[in-house]
Amino acid sequence: TAGTITGTTNIDPLPSWNEGPLKTNILNFVTESIDSSGENFITVEDRVAVFDNDGTLWSEQPVYFQFFFAMDQVRGMAATHPAWSKTEPYKSVINHDLKSLMAQGEKGLMKILGTSHSGMTSTEFENMVTKWIDTAVHPLEKKKYKDLVFLPMIELIRFLQDHDYTVYIVSGGETAFMRPWVTEAYGIPRDRVIGSNLKLEFQWQGDEPVLMRLPAVEFNDDGVGKPMSIDRIIGRKPVAAFGNSDGDLPMLQWTASNPKYKSLMMIVHHTDSTREFAYDRESKIGRLDKALDWAKEHQWYLMDMQKDWKVVYKP
Amino acid sequence: TAGTITGTTNIDPLPSWNEGPLKTNILNFVTESIDSSGENFITVEDRVAVFDNDGTLWSEQPVYFQFFFAMDQVRGMAATHPAWSKTEPYKSVINHDLKSLMAQGEKGLMKILGTSHSGMTSTEFENMVTKWIDTAVHPLEKKKYKDLVFLPMIELIRFLQDHDYTVYIVSGGETAFMRPWVTEAYGIPRDRVIGSNLKLEFQWQGDEPVLMRLPAVEFNDDGVGKPMSIDRIIGRKPVAAFGNSDGDLPMLQWTASNPKYKSLMMIVHHTDSTREFAYDRESKIGRLDKALDWAKEHQWYLMDMQKDWKVVYKP
Ligand SMILES: [Ca+2]
Ligand SMILES: [Ca+2]
Repeated sequence: TAGTITGTTNIDPLPSWNEGPLKTNILNFVTESIDSSGENFITVEDRVAVFDNDGTLWSEQPVYFQFFFAMDQVRGMAATHPAWSKTEPYKSVINHDLKSLMAQGEKGLMKILGTSHSGMTSTEFENMVTKWIDTAVHPLEKKKYKDLVFLPMIELIRFLQDHDYTVYIVSGGETAFMRPWVTEAYGIPRDRVIGSNLKLEFQWQGDEPVLMRLPAVEFNDDGVGKPMSIDRIIGRKPVAAFGNSDGDLPMLQWTASNPKYKSLMMIVHHTDSTREFAYDRESKIGRLDKALDWAKEHQWYLMDMQKDWKVVYKP
Repeated sequence: TAGTITGTTNIDPLPSWNEGPLKTNILNFVTESIDSSGENFITVEDRVAVFDNDGTLWSEQPVYFQFFFAMDQVRGMAATHPAWSKTEPYKSVINHDLKSLMAQGEKGLMKILGTSHSGMTSTEFENMVTKWIDTAVHPLEKKKYKDLVFLPMIELIRFLQDHDYTVYIVSGGETAFMRPWVTEAYGIPRDRVIGSNLKLEFQWQGDEPVLMRLPAVEFNDDGVGKPMSIDRIIGRKPVAAFGNSDGDLPMLQWTASNPKYKSLMMIVHHTDSTREFAYDRESKIGRLDKALDWAKEHQWYLMDMQKDWKVVYKP
């Protein structure tokens, strides 16, 4: 493995990152971790890196993209549900009135999520997501959602994988929503996606067993849920963790407590209102407040989108 | 990959299996699956095989070995809990009176499981299991539990892995109980172990984050739970599934419904009272009744331990 980095030293593995201490630190961390003669060597099986998704690998404003998916599904179903044009919260969704929908609080949002995410089989849902991600466009950015992924982070994933890191997504979003497209978007295989889950029911449709998606959350993979799912599914403490909000703090703390290795904790700080969005402590979506204090106190790395990223989105 | 099998045709990959139609069928399935010019070719990423653990990869009589572990832990704790010598269900455990314990029904068993499995951190539990598996001995077989693994199945796992199959354990036993020893015992890595789970709680012990194990089941990975966890964690329908009881039937049915590939469903039939144990339809542990009928009706393969296995345990 030591040969790998030697062979690539002349090619910048992170071309979308501006030169500076942050980039140098990432390069040094990985270089040291594969040097079997150094004190910071990490065995291949322990090279586990975890990435949050929303706000870390792609944008998440003005609402999580999975919620745009939910609203698009409801609008697609509206023709066969004529009563919705007069019934909230569907009416606001059909009228593209996000403000009015938000004003209805969590109950309205849950109804939209339930209607769009349950009552179909896991296979049917996968097909819905695949169709949506291939065609749907973000209302503000006017780009496909799958093009609103952060190129610097994709380079970082690839750089880690090229040095025998096993890279997982550990997200509050639903596993079944991410799985259909993350391989193409990020180069992360289907079985390395950990997220929230709905309850399922094993049913027969004629001779065919199916998993029916029920309108109930089985596991919420956010906050303290993240170290739990890491322990349950990966079974190793990561050596590197990347997030962007308070919901990632326990995952970052868990990684920082790795007893065997020096670990790498990094937070995407959304500082770029021109190229993306600027938000942190006061944001409803992707609030970065406690984790920002903690990061500063513990010398974790803040990726300042404006300063550190030469490019934001894939061109 | 086609070269792999050519290079090994002279060496029997399944030496502990008797010659016969069953062994031939296994060899043919794998050989065809890696032949990219044939109609039964399976792409590498779809080569997913799932194995039940108790009764499929190691023995499970007279009770699941995880329950022997539980009783051993309780006995180890007895010195610091003097009242237990007069209190059921602990008294029966301390006296090695399995019959009296069983007579107390599920409530007694749950108490023993709760006492032995919760109230410690995930790391502490891992250490308990590691210590136990390295030393504990089966009361009837007079061998270490880790030596009561089925050599023919280990050869089969290795054979599949050698042909780029990704092999998972999908067991009703607890993930955290299997993970510490399955790599040494079966050659299956830690992150390919799917099982039942206890609820966890993220806590701080001083500066150290820990996951505390709570006395409550979060997910029961048995019966219909198996296709659910396969869908949630693997995200692909298997092409091969191996089990031994009615609790594996939904997993086998799920695998049989693979829409893209010819799949392989096999059941270990415990027919050998001399070398192991003989049981099926009437057994409390590992009951094989509905799945036996279903297997016969659907021409799934029954591995007849007495006839098909030249060797049972690792020598
Ligand atoms: Ca996030
Ligand atoms: Ca079993």
